[in-house]
Amino acid sequence: MRRLLVANRGEIAVRIIRAARDLGIETVAVYSAADRGARHTTLADRAVCIGPPPAPASYLRHDLLLQVAEATGCDAVHPGYGFLSEDASFAAGVADHGLTFVGPPARAIEQMGDKAIARKVVAGADVPVVPGSDGVVADVGEALRFAADAGYPVLLKARSGGGGRGMRVAKDAAELERSFPLSRQEAGATFGDDGVYVERYLPRVRHVEVQVLADHHGRVGQLGERDCSLQRRHQKLLEEAPSPALDDRQREELCAAAVRAARAVGYASAGTVEFLLDLDSARFFFIEMNTRIQVEHPVTEMLTGVDLVAWQLRIAAGEPLTLDRVPARGHAIEFRINAEDWTQGFRPSPGTLSAFQPPAGPGVRVDTHSFAGATVPPHYDSLLAKLIVHGADRDEALRRSRRALDEFHVAGVASTVGLHRWLLEQSEVADGTYTTSYLTERT
Amino acid sequence: MRRLLVANRGEIAVRIIRAARDLGIETVAVYSAADRGARHTTLADRAVCIGPPPAPASYLRHDLLLQVAEATGCDAVHPGYGFLSEDASFAAGVADHGLTFVGPPARAIEQMGDKAIARKVVAGADVPVVPGSDGVVADVGEALRFAADAGYPVLLKARSGGGGRGMRVAKDAAELERSFPLSRQEAGATFGDDGVYVERYLPRVRHVEVQVLADHHGRVGQLGERDCSLQRRHQKLLEEAPSPALDDRQREELCAAAVRAARAVGYASAGTVEFLLDLDSARFFFIEMNTRIQVEHPVTEMLTGVDLVAWQLRIAAGEPLTLDRVPARGHAIEFRINAEDWTQGFRPSPGTLSAFQPPAGPGVRVDTHSFAGATVPPHYDSLLAKLIVHGADRDEALRRSRRALDEFHVAGVASTVGLHRWLLEQSEVADGTYTTSYLTERT
Repeated sequence: MRRLLVANRGEIAVRIIRAARDLGIETVAVYSAADRGARHTTLADRAVCIGPPPAPASYLRHDLLLQVAEATGCDAVHPGYGFLSEDASFAAGVADHGLTFVGPPARAIEQMGDKAIARKVVAGADVPVVPGSDGVVADVGEALRFAADAGYPVLLKARSGGGGRGMRVAKDAAELERSFPLSRQEAGATFGDDGVYVERYLPRVRHVEVQVLADHHGRVGQLGERDCSLQRRHQKLLEEAPSPALDDRQREELCAAAVRAARAVGYASAGTVEFLLDLDSARFFFIEMNTRIQVEHPVTEMLTGVDLVAWQLRIAAGEPLTLDRVPARGHAIEFRINAEDWTQGFRPSPGTLSAFQPPAGPGVRVDTHSFAGATVPPHYDSLLAKLIVHGADRDEALRRSRRALDEFHVAGVASTVGLHRWLLEQSEVADGTYTTSYLTERT
Repeated sequence: MRRLLVANRGEIAVRIIRAARDLGIETVAVYSAADRGARHTTLADRAVCIGPPPAPASYLRHDLLLQVAEATGCDAVHPGYGFLSEDASFAAGVADHGLTFVGPPARAIEQMGDKAIARKVVAGADVPVVPGSDGVVADVGEALRFAADAGYPVLLKARSGGGGRGMRVAKDAAELERSFPLSRQEAGATFGDDGVYVERYLPRVRHVEVQVLADHHGRVGQLGERDCSLQRRHQKLLEEAPSPALDDRQREELCAAAVRAARAVGYASAGTVEFLLDLDSARFFFIEMNTRIQVEHPVTEMLTGVDLVAWQLRIAAGEPLTLDRVPARGHAIEFRINAEDWTQGFRPSPGTLSAFQPPAGPGVRVDTHSFAGATVPPHYDSLLAKLIVHGADRDEALRRSRRALDEFHVAGVASTVGLHRWLLEQSEVADGTYTTSYLTERT
């Protein structure tokens, strides 16, 4: 691998460029007209404009991206997260053009992308799944029959879903009848696929996920879990590891199940197997596998010292995975700093950054593309920066996080710095007992 | 400990303020008129101007510092490095005012501060010392007698020395006769003490030092070594750990010797025991102990995940040391970024920073007080920032360092970023075979 097309923007494009450069790989950035002068364009060896915002006119254009890759002599493409990262046809298209796709095989993306198939594949590998309909339900009648059988509340989920879009909870038959067409409509509008399936809804759960790395030689490793239970409407806001909710035996079982799931789908590259931990039964259930690098991957990097994006590149280049004994150390927490006004219903707050001073010091890492004077365009996700804090234990990590957030100065746009500072003062966050509904119920 | 006076400036003042805040301790900064608006003054809870530059009129004024500490209700004083950090009378003065000195007992500073006494103390604890004169030599005749007996070349050293001032190598009697008065004069002018002693000079050595932590309850721990052989005229420029020159058996012996040295002097707080590793005999010899936090302490923090400055504060507050099993992980390198024109004999380059963009990303830490628009005053040391890079192994650390230095953008003043980038291309640095004379011979 000599030259890499970075088919993304924002902090993850910056992250990928750094990992590539660490490995001596040249980088070509792409950008929309709204991202002219953005950090990833100035950091890469070369940058090419691929059209106007929004994303469908530029960052989602398979044809343009492949054209740029060929014109600039790239031999590999990294899709980052979001955008085309879980588009199996893009992965296949990259391969068809004789380029290396830095990610899993298209078939693994496809299988895990269909949530109904994913459930079947992992269940076959002895990985527990939430009791649910046998694949997509044809109509509301089928959904009602499943719910009558399994018991309420139930959860409607989009087959092609992600990020909580198309998800609805129904606590009785009347609500299920009302929600079913809405879920279908939202799924169709968001993912171009209105297939919806039904699951038991677990009210008191934590979201715990396992980072896996697999190579093209059959080796599958895991780097422990991350707890991403602090969400608002299924959007993660704060992630930490180790999970305060797991004991050692559960952790071992969970990680082993994640490895089985990755093996079952013939996985290669970095991936994340997501589970719900049901606090009432102390059992965990597979939700889905994210077949890409995740926003919260630095939490695991801070704990283990392993560079996950570098491993994506090394695995894509054919290198065998060598993760002999990676002991996790201490505790790490990531805070997503979004350009949103959290006091006004988390309204997006695009604009120009008049000040941007991230914190620093021992145990503090900030992954960002932002800088004073930069524009936050309205067209994309609102992530300004990720603050990741490490401490020798959870207590030190929390204390250091408070200090780091106090130091973080953002002006010109609203940000979620204050939200996180507030969160750290809440007893459920301080003692680690929050569940996935904690934040949605309070904001 | 509730409120801490930070009796220093620059990056170490910033570092101490962060550590204090992580522990919930309030901070009071002091500054000279040349440091108005400096980062440490805006980061602390409160800042007090203590006079004009240069240091003797402000940062070195015991009376003013103690006055500020009392007036602002501080109960502890952290001296940082340089300035008053190894001034035993200041440490004693702090204690006399009923305040906690964040550092070792005044007696340990005093004993280790007199290089001749220090040699005797550690030699008594079975720590090897370089063959040398029995304390300070009274006159050139005594120096010549020692040299005739021990053999040339010999090294003249200031009893109260540090940073290479007053040090001179003599390869024969004629040179020793010429150098002796010069060494004495320089020592007197620099340290107010013209006491000079003589040692065998070892031409092919590495500078390897051991980080120790000791509490007030008799516990002494060590956190491994740092290799600081890349020096120019005895000024460290690049430090790394683990040392590429040590094998496991040597490492174990060295660290054990450092613990014995610290015990012998009744040490408490963070300290560093410095050794020369003679490459010709594969033996190591004690040089001196630095009874303070060192510039290069982050190298050890990146390897071990231990916050050394926080431990200084915790130990000073009476907490017992708990360092159960701190396994070092990977490899770390620190680059001192100075405001110096390394292409013009390392001439200091004060001025205003028109741009200051440090690198970031996984495994990259930057400790700095600098920012775009900040002034670099001519009165103090020229350290702009410390770039510390960690990798899973030395190879990854080196590759990441090259990338990080490429990303580091400093404008308005000259800097040593380019020197470090050049160093990383030199085979002796790449393969870790450099000695302490490497850089002095080439620049």
